[in-house]
Amino acid sequence: MAALTCSASDLQSLLGGAANATAAAEYICTRFVAISDHFVDTAYAVDNTYLLFSAYLVFAMQLGFAMLCAGSVRAKNTMNIMLTNVLDAATGGLFYYLFGFAFAFGSPSNGFIGKQFFGLESFPSPSFDYGYFLYQWAFAIAAAGITSGSIAERTQFVSYLIYSSFLTGLVYPIVSHWFWSADGWASAGRADGNLLFGSGVIDFAGSGVVHMVGGIAGLWGALIEGPRMGRFDHEGKSMALRGHSGTLVVLGTFLLWFGWYGFNPGSFLNILRTYGDVGSYYGQWSAIGRTAVTTTLAGSSAALTTLFGKRMLAGNWNVTDVCNGLLGGFAAITSGCAVVDPWAAIICGFVAAWVLIGCNKLADKFHYDDPLEAAQLHGGCGAWGIIFTALFAKETYVNEIFSGKPGRPYGLLMGGGGRLLAAHMVQILVITGWVSMTMGTLFWILHKFKLLRISADEEMAGMDLTSHGGLAYVYYDEHDDAMQKKSFMMTKVDP
Amino acid sequence: MAALTCSASDLQSLLGGAANATAAAEYICTRFVAISDHFVDTAYAVDNTYLLFSAYLVFAMQLGFAMLCAGSVRAKNTMNIMLTNVLDAATGGLFYYLFGFAFAFGSPSNGFIGKQFFGLESFPSPSFDYGYFLYQWAFAIAAAGITSGSIAERTQFVSYLIYSSFLTGLVYPIVSHWFWSADGWASAGRADGNLLFGSGVIDFAGSGVVHMVGGIAGLWGALIEGPRMGRFDHEGKSMALRGHSGTLVVLGTFLLWFGWYGFNPGSFLNILRTYGDVGSYYGQWSAIGRTAVTTTLAGSSAALTTLFGKRMLAGNWNVTDVCNGLLGGFAAITSGCAVVDPWAAIICGFVAAWVLIGCNKLADKFHYDDPLEAAQLHGGCGAWGIIFTALFAKETYVNEIFSGKPGRPYGLLMGGGGRLLAAHMVQILVITGWVSMTMGTLFWILHKFKLLRISADEEMAGMDLTSHGGLAYVYYDEHDDAMQKKSFMMTKVDP
Amino acid sequence: MAALTCSASDLQSLLGGAANATAAAEYICTRFVAISDHFVDTAYAVDNTYLLFSAYLVFAMQLGFAMLCAGSVRAKNTMNIMLTNVLDAATGGLFYYLFGFAFAFGSPSNGFIGKQFFGLESFPSPSFDYGYFLYQWAFAIAAAGITSGSIAERTQFVSYLIYSSFLTGLVYPIVSHWFWSADGWASAGRADGNLLFGSGVIDFAGSGVVHMVGGIAGLWGALIEGPRMGRFDHEGKSMALRGHSGTLVVLGTFLLWFGWYGFNPGSFLNILRTYGDVGSYYGQWSAIGRTAVTTTLAGSSAALTTLFGKRMLAGNWNVTDVCNGLLGGFAAITSGCAVVDPWAAIICGFVAAWVLIGCNKLADKFHYDDPLEAAQLHGGCGAWGIIFTALFAKETYVNEIFSGKPGRPYGLLMGGGGRLLAAHMVQILVITGWVSMTMGTLFWILHKFKLLRISADEEMAGMDLTSHGGLAYVYYDEHDDAMQKKSFMMTKVDP
Repeated sequence: MAALTCSASDLQSLLGGAANATAAAEYICTRFVAISDHFVDTAYAVDNTYLLFSAYLVFAMQLGFAMLCAGSVRAKNTMNIMLTNVLDAATGGLFYYLFGFAFAFGSPSNGFIGKQFFGLESFPSPSFDYGYFLYQWAFAIAAAGITSGSIAERTQFVSYLIYSSFLTGLVYPIVSHWFWSADGWASAGRADGNLLFGSGVIDFAGSGVVHMVGGIAGLWGALIEGPRMGRFDHEGKSMALRGHSGTLVVLGTFLLWFGWYGFNPGSFLNILRTYGDVGSYYGQWSAIGRTAVTTTLAGSSAALTTLFGKRMLAGNWNVTDVCNGLLGGFAAITSGCAVVDPWAAIICGFVAAWVLIGCNKLADKFHYDDPLEAAQLHGGCGAWGIIFTALFAKETYVNEIFSGKPGRPYGLLMGGGGRLLAAHMVQILVITGWVSMTMGTLFWILHKFKLLRISADEEMAGMDLTSHGGLAYVYYDEHDDAMQKKSFMMTKVDP
Repeated sequence: MAALTCSASDLQSLLGGAANATAAAEYICTRFVAISDHFVDTAYAVDNTYLLFSAYLVFAMQLGFAMLCAGSVRAKNTMNIMLTNVLDAATGGLFYYLFGFAFAFGSPSNGFIGKQFFGLESFPSPSFDYGYFLYQWAFAIAAAGITSGSIAERTQFVSYLIYSSFLTGLVYPIVSHWFWSADGWASAGRADGNLLFGSGVIDFAGSGVVHMVGGIAGLWGALIEGPRMGRFDHEGKSMALRGHSGTLVVLGTFLLWFGWYGFNPGSFLNILRTYGDVGSYYGQWSAIGRTAVTTTLAGSSAALTTLFGKRMLAGNWNVTDVCNGLLGGFAAITSGCAVVDPWAAIICGFVAAWVLIGCNKLADKFHYDDPLEAAQLHGGCGAWGIIFTALFAKETYVNEIFSGKPGRPYGLLMGGGGRLLAAHMVQILVITGWVSMTMGTLFWILHKFKLLRISADEEMAGMDLTSHGGLAYVYYDEHDDAMQKKSFMMTKVDP
Repeated sequence: MAALTCSASDLQSLLGGAANATAAAEYICTRFVAISDHFVDTAYAVDNTYLLFSAYLVFAMQLGFAMLCAGSVRAKNTMNIMLTNVLDAATGGLFYYLFGFAFAFGSPSNGFIGKQFFGLESFPSPSFDYGYFLYQWAFAIAAAGITSGSIAERTQFVSYLIYSSFLTGLVYPIVSHWFWSADGWASAGRADGNLLFGSGVIDFAGSGVVHMVGGIAGLWGALIEGPRMGRFDHEGKSMALRGHSGTLVVLGTFLLWFGWYGFNPGSFLNILRTYGDVGSYYGQWSAIGRTAVTTTLAGSSAALTTLFGKRMLAGNWNVTDVCNGLLGGFAAITSGCAVVDPWAAIICGFVAAWVLIGCNKLADKFHYDDPLEAAQLHGGCGAWGIIFTALFAKETYVNEIFSGKPGRPYGLLMGGGGRLLAAHMVQILVITGWVSMTMGTLFWILHKFKLLRISADEEMAGMDLTSHGGLAYVYYDEHDDAMQKKSFMMTKVDP
């Protein structure tokens, strides 16, 4: 806010001839200072309004996950999977408060892990307010939700409690520290300016940090415990185990779409920021709007590609596939959403759809069973999104968002050289390695201690009956069964 | 921001006696200029925050439509109708980006169709930012959603793909150009001030532009393909084909209500605008709040009227009817929401309920079958809303919102003369004519080429099985059928 | 905005030596006045944006209630309970507009009941804008929703219409007048500064005003009409009558969580307010963020406590119980959310979980049947929340929020003395007394006139069939029953 500063002594010498130049200058300058302060307050209010409502939208994604997951599993495991979604948010709340946030953003620290703000000590500070914590918490709980989809319908509940805490409390926070905190070794906005390949990783809203982390964790879990009973027949042929409610799948997908407007555009964290000149119609608010548009277009393009692609491959117009394709497009654009043009987002979604189709083919071939296609969708499309950003990131946008370091690398296909791509390849490798090392090991230990997979009997009966006190649905009533059954089947009623 | 401008030469002459009057004046004025610029930035940030979150709410209506439609059709066509809702958003995203927005708002152009900003070229501009595009996209996809309700359960999917693209990409954008763009021949805020009947059409949030367009398109579709099998018996008696889930109907209705707060109050597009004096508690923020209130009251009044009206007519307290009545109230108030008083909104809703009941009687009489009552609700109540606005629009509000042209016509019953009503009658006729001409012709052609309606066998079996890869619901599992069935029926469990 | 005021005569004397000191001073001061006015406008726009979107979130809770209630009752009463949720909002809209708001906030008036703004006359005013009305309406309809849960599955619809109108239109508005209006006898922000026990009641977002009111009304209704048939067997043993859809329960719970971010943080009503110095990073925006965090943590802690508590007591991991525990944590923190630290919120939720478990044990013992556990949850946990606030309210936060009256009491365990606790005990007693007197009497009268409870036959058949025109669900179609049944059971489909 440089142009608003007012120096009383400067002004005093200019007003020299006045009756009391010193007092006049001070009188005037005091008011400019007050104005400047009022602008500061206004910006805090506007930015916090923006950030808080974005956080609420991201939280709504947890509901979206719950519905998507519920609809994608068989009726007998509905309560089980929804309980994991509720608990992701609740356990995440406590653990992220106690230490997750500290590990992620506790600056000053080192490049590997944060170490301030345990239990929100010394909060708020000039760098972080509560709204920021809430926003990051809503992100943290998303990763665990992805993983629970991969291992749905066959995992012991106690196992879920263990891996979920470990993922939300430690594995994810450390990854977010690397790429998003001011100290992170691969952060594009690193405070000391010492950027990886002179660039750092531009994983704007987390195709890698959130989606790949959740997806790869799920991959290991699902690989180690193996496919659900009946998923591949004795000849190894893939048999669909259809989810019990397409309505819930669509409900969940739309809620995720809705929430993604908090996830991607919200990742700017504030909206009252100018690019270049003050008083221009173009500023961070435009970049935020553009990010909402790229997100929309990537999802749209992926959905349509999947619609026609699967029509050709499978012969029908499949709504579940379209929903998954759509979400794959979102997972892919999440990395580059802020730094690419709308036309590029369409390419991003188009490719994401084929990546997902390809990953699903591979999964079938290797007898990998993932009830939500979560590893394929979040892992596969997430990885594609990271590469996409390194190809299509636009110079102007990169410099506007990561200002203060001119001449930095940008998208390879946009003429920005290969250093951003190099950094992004490192991101893919490092996330894959770190999550495999931590979560892979954890799942393997749980497996060895026979804590990972439920028994065959439980799997047949369904976990809702065996572990959660009963099935999700009770449509009939034994008292009046006959009457109700008739009613449920009665469709012709006189108006 | 006139009062903030500071002329250094003016101030210099006033400060004449000072040591360096020129420099002093410049010193002071520079700061006022900076302040003025900061206010500009602040307004962009605030207004974009307001517009973007409003756009997200409008988008949530698409989820509401999906759930309402799903619940209102039979279980066997659930996947089909939901797929159309997902695709409305996705196809709409691409087409509105490529040309829809350009046709609608591509100014400067002519009164009939816009011609700038294809593929968001030259975006953002001083007149439009990305948030505006997103908001208008969310509106565009709503119209197609209305139509798909009218022709549900019997329309070929390929036919849907064709009419939906045509409607979202061309028919709707042109209508919105006429009434909402700066160049539109019937726009109330026309840039050249040459208003239809000296007034222009005040269709604030689109009872005509959105609801009538969708409703009349649906009317033609449903008329041309005829009623569903079994909807009228061999004697021509109306037989209800009940939707499969009242829960989904209520879920959808509430989501539409929620989203309508983006649709109606959001149509102001910005919130930081004063009416008259600066520094007053009354401004556009008050008008926006009032619009949320009129919307709420119109819906409430329509819901209650329907509740008691249908109790008298049909003898029960029907939740589906109440939901439809509520939505009819919203569709009606959408036109005048910003320019009428809360008490008038109650009248609007009361009449809307009876309009809907009347239209439904007519539909039954003429053997018109519309599974969602969409033509009746959006077409009928939408038309009533357009007339209502012309009767009850209040002078003060009209002048505040459409400022810069004093003495303009307002509501007939409020003493504002008949010119607004004349303009609004023209709107009803022109929309009816244009949509009938375009969409009616299209549906007729599809019908002639046997692309419109599915076969009788498909209709019996349901489209989910024949075209979409399977039913929406799988509650039982063949393996363990006996056990599960017992469980589903078990209600007495020891606590 | 004191520091921005500019006195032309003061400045004139300081500029004495200038060519035209008077004009120069006026020239400069006019601009400062304009700036000050622009800040006023900006604050209105920002605060209304914040308040309106918060109101929309609170409204979304009504959808949450509808889904939670629907899922918690048997399939045969689904339409009935959802209709009450829709009508709470609609009837509430009309009644709160006509007189509810006037009774609650119609100041100047007396300590007992308000008496201005009937039908929003003289609206908006410098003290209230439309957004405030909308926000308070969304609160008012929540109370009635709580009560309808307690008496679900056995109450005549006409009875619902009567008590719901009475509660939303009169009983609740009067309570909110006492604790929240500028004239209320127990308000912590009372305009005349004459506070109850020198403190007033800090029921920030309404653990008492909303939740206890709804809960105690429900308690009397459910007590007077007695338990549902089959809820306790002939030996008096408790038999669970399971709700028909766990999916709807989770959907409703998450929507309530989502909406609670409007309920609690939204209760600040504005966000652009400084605490102490202007230009600081710490202000009301921080307190709002902190409130979102305390809300999150209280719910999370209650959910986890319930998970493990019920696992010990009942032997399974029960998702419905976890959802109720979570909501109990929210109901409890609602009172103190703004004035306690995050760590205290965790204690709040922990205790709330046990309060709910205890109340449910009591309910079973006394053969009290509440299908939603609404009296236990909103009444019991609400009362605990009121006490909690009196124990843990922090001095700094209390003084920041209720400024202008230094040295006021705060939490007993924080060293703030017992006067806040005394005021809060009074609140619990007074709410219990008032609601018992009004709603208890009303339910008793309805009971005496045989208007309260449905007949045994109706209860067996379910109210959807007997009063609402049919069941909520129609999954089978009589035409093609055989085929569909087969399809519903078909799970193995070739991919």
